Amino acid sequence: MGFDPGSVRVVACDIFGTTVDWRTGVAEQVAEIAAGRGVELDGGAFADAWRDRYLPSMRRVNDGERDWAYLDTLHRESLDELLELHGVAGAFGEDARRRLVRSWHRLPAWDDSVDGLARLRERYVVAALSNGGFALLTNLVKEAGLPFDCILSAELARAYKPDPRAYLTAVGLLDVEPSEVLMVAAHAWDIDGAREAGLRTAFLERPLEKGPARGADRAEDTRSDLAVRGFGELADLLAAVPGTVPPE
Amino acid sequence: MGFDPGSVRVVACDIFGTTVDWRTGVAEQVAEIAAGRGVELDGGAFADAWRDRYLPSMRRVNDGERDWAYLDTLHRESLDELLELHGVAGAFGEDARRRLVRSWHRLPAWDDSVDGLARLRERYVVAALSNGGFALLTNLVKEAGLPFDCILSAELARAYKPDPRAYLTAVGLLDVEPSEVLMVAAHAWDIDGAREAGLRTAFLERPLEKGPARGADRAEDTRSDLAVRGFGELADLLAAVPGTVPPE
Repeated sequence: MGFDPGSVRVVACDIFGTTVDWRTGVAEQVAEIAAGRGVELDGGAFADAWRDRYLPSMRRVNDGERDWAYLDTLHRESLDELLELHGVAGAFGEDARRRLVRSWHRLPAWDDSVDGLARLRERYVVAALSNGGFALLTNLVKEAGLPFDCILSAELARAYKPDPRAYLTAVGLLDVEPSEVLMVAAHAWDIDGAREAGLRTAFLERPLEKGPARGADRAEDTRSDLAVRGFGELADLLAAVPGTVPPE
Repeated sequence: MGFDPGSVRVVACDIFGTTVDWRTGVAEQVAEIAAGRGVELDGGAFADAWRDRYLPSMRRVNDGERDWAYLDTLHRESLDELLELHGVAGAFGEDARRRLVRSWHRLPAWDDSVDGLARLRERYVVAALSNGGFALLTNLVKEAGLPFDCILSAELARAYKPDPRAYLTAVGLLDVEPSEVLMVAAHAWDIDGAREAGLRTAFLERPLEKGPARGADRAEDTRSDLAVRGFGELADLLAAVPGTVPPE
């Protein structure tokens, strides 16, 4: 290990893909809402195409090409484009489109998330740190029963990860040093951003994040302090570290 | 009832005095830290005098007399003055003063808080909304085992309650209307501020908040939508309301 895990006080967790299975959740809700309108849509492929627009849409905010916009707004814009591309725009009115955007607020946790987070919480302040809006995350975390100590969002910085402001605003709100925060994420771009902001990092492998047909990011795609295969393994690893700094 | 409690989506709870017993917690820690330095201090009286400086210190921030300052900073300034006034400044070095300021991060919950909040949480998004800083609240809520869905702080608005910005920033982050939030507080000034910002209000009586010798605020000191004697009674009252809007 290249760092002393005993110096960690806060475990900050990415949400989409890392803690919850966005693809299964969105695919199911898309398919259901489409079926209710007599439209046949491949939920998985639609979810993939929607997610493909995620990073580019946030980059335009971070680069200052446009003002701050909520993730819900970005999701809505991508959705409108996609429905047009699929030639089904006419079948989805305002209400259906709102429900589709809301599908990102209600996603299933990966099997190991609830237990692993609960174990981490015994020794650390455990925070959600996501590009999702504060309300989205509050709803999602509540619905999935994820035991976080607090919710932090890129919205509080009005800049999206991997912009350093997103990480450093969270660090400042928790009144710790960047090096006392361990960022846990399943995406190389998130690990890279956190590392550049001075945080410690744990790459958490989610091989099925993008479904069975597409490859997910792997530990070797980035440089992280730790690499684990789930929150249970992370809790095991950190539990073996002596002299952890208590939260206060 | 002057409002429809079925329209409430979020229950926002004040912390100091309403959810936790600041006086007992601070008095005990002050007495202990003082005793460790061979100084005899009446912890309760000291806690009272400290708290008396609370609202005036925040008012100077809200009025623009000074820039934003964290509650910890305000607490520290009041503490320095008080130790001087008590003629014991020499006995408390930097480390002891930091520990004293931190006593506000670790306070006991009132008996009904944990259970009452857990019951409210079954139907509502339940949020902490306090003038304490985000880190302070995260530590305090974790230590006291308070089951909030999320933590909101005046720090996020850089304005203290009863300034409307403190309430409306919280409302905005939760993506609801002011009238969908029920502010629960044991202080008339907090209820007044919330009401003026357009929130619904529940006055929660804590007769012993200021200790046995001083009177606490009473329901008749303000105008609130509901008045209850604890979180249990609030949960009972709201559980009797049909047609509550689900969080999402």
